[in-house]
Amino acid sequence: MSSPPSNSVNTPVFDAAFREQFETLLAWRRDVRRFRSEPVPESLLEEVLATARFAPSVGNSQPWRFVLVESTEARAAVRESFERCNAEALQDYSGSRASLYARLKLSGLDDAPVHLAVFCDGGTEAGHGLGRKTMPETLKYSVVTAIYTIWLAARARGLGMGWVSILEPDAVAQCLQVPQEWELVAYLCIGYPEEDHTDPELERHGWQSQDPEAAKLRRR
Amino acid sequence: MSSPPSNSVNTPVFDAAFREQFETLLAWRRDVRRFRSEPVPESLLEEVLATARFAPSVGNSQPWRFVLVESTEARAAVRESFERCNAEALQDYSGSRASLYARLKLSGLDDAPVHLAVFCDGGTEAGHGLGRKTMPETLKYSVVTAIYTIWLAARARGLGMGWVSILEPDAVAQCLQVPQEWELVAYLCIGYPEEDHTDPELERHGWQSQDPEAAKLRRR
Repeated sequence: MSSPPSNSVNTPVFDAAFREQFETLLAWRRDVRRFRSEPVPESLLEEVLATARFAPSVGNSQPWRFVLVESTEARAAVRESFERCNAEALQDYSGSRASLYARLKLSGLDDAPVHLAVFCDGGTEAGHGLGRKTMPETLKYSVVTAIYTIWLAARARGLGMGWVSILEPDAVAQCLQVPQEWELVAYLCIGYPEEDHTDPELERHGWQSQDPEAAKLRRR
Repeated sequence: MSSPPSNSVNTPVFDAAFREQFETLLAWRRDVRRFRSEPVPESLLEEVLATARFAPSVGNSQPWRFVLVESTEARAAVRESFERCNAEALQDYSGSRASLYARLKLSGLDDAPVHLAVFCDGGTEAGHGLGRKTMPETLKYSVVTAIYTIWLAARARGLGMGWVSILEPDAVAQCLQVPQEWELVAYLCIGYPEEDHTDPELERHGWQSQDPEAAKLRRR
């Protein structure tokens, strides 16, 4: 076996100041649901989406597929799906939890200038199936890392993003007329946020605060 | 409805220099399989894992659970699972693709000083089910964003990370004796990388290069 090509020159070193600013970026990224109506310049959006190429993917399969949802018809169909799902979800709660759920703003579908549907191409041959025989879900996980990449890249440009999951994935795929092998991973709202804050939206509105279980490190 | 608490003071602004360095971080993050034997200081590992708290999660459910795999027995069981799965995966390829697969180094299980199993706690009550009625997979997606967060945080500290998915998730969960509701999302190898490079491991070894399909922006 030949040795791998050398490409180790100019390895970057990240200093404490960068790490601090990076942590600030992580902390100020939020699931945004309140947007200003101001449009997002096309070139800025393209710049953000271009960062997806850096996302890790199983077998280097790069299965993310981006669909910009612009037509009134498609947006209306998505909004209808959200309204249906949200009304049904409300039925699962009772008492004060139900009142709280009803008061939450759970999507920016009405205000966000940019709607982006992100799919996983289950039919892609890229990656030749490597790494996903026993854990096929890693293909969709690869799309999730691409989404998180653009989320951070958007925030670094002053843009906010919100992930809407209160939707019927098949209905969204159908109204957007994507290939049958494509599965919806996320429906994203993007735009300039009305406000910036570090506390999660659902924490500030009393739905769910930090969970100590998540911070525990177990050993085996 | 009361107005949300104000927390918009001191909103950070990210400049072009930061964005450039952030893109460098994204580009130099790699799926590392070649590690130096040098141990990772415990405090550094804790610092990296602490950044997971910034990851987005559906309903703010924070379902990620970290298990540090230290015992010889557990590591051996994981390695055996990998060997089994990898041998089976090889059977799916033929000709030059099979020879290439056989030559690839697909895990750092033998060298990495730190082994970290990451689970999704399907039984968590945090988040009260919000946002995952119609797309329940978003719970596992939340764990993926936590993994990507620590991946970038590790790289910013000179550490490399590799994601091993050629495993039987149930076998790994069983040998680590985790609660039944926990599902394996990733098995991670962490340590100081033997080499740094920007080209993906599977690209430099001729398995899969950039796929133009991933970069296309569709409109509807």
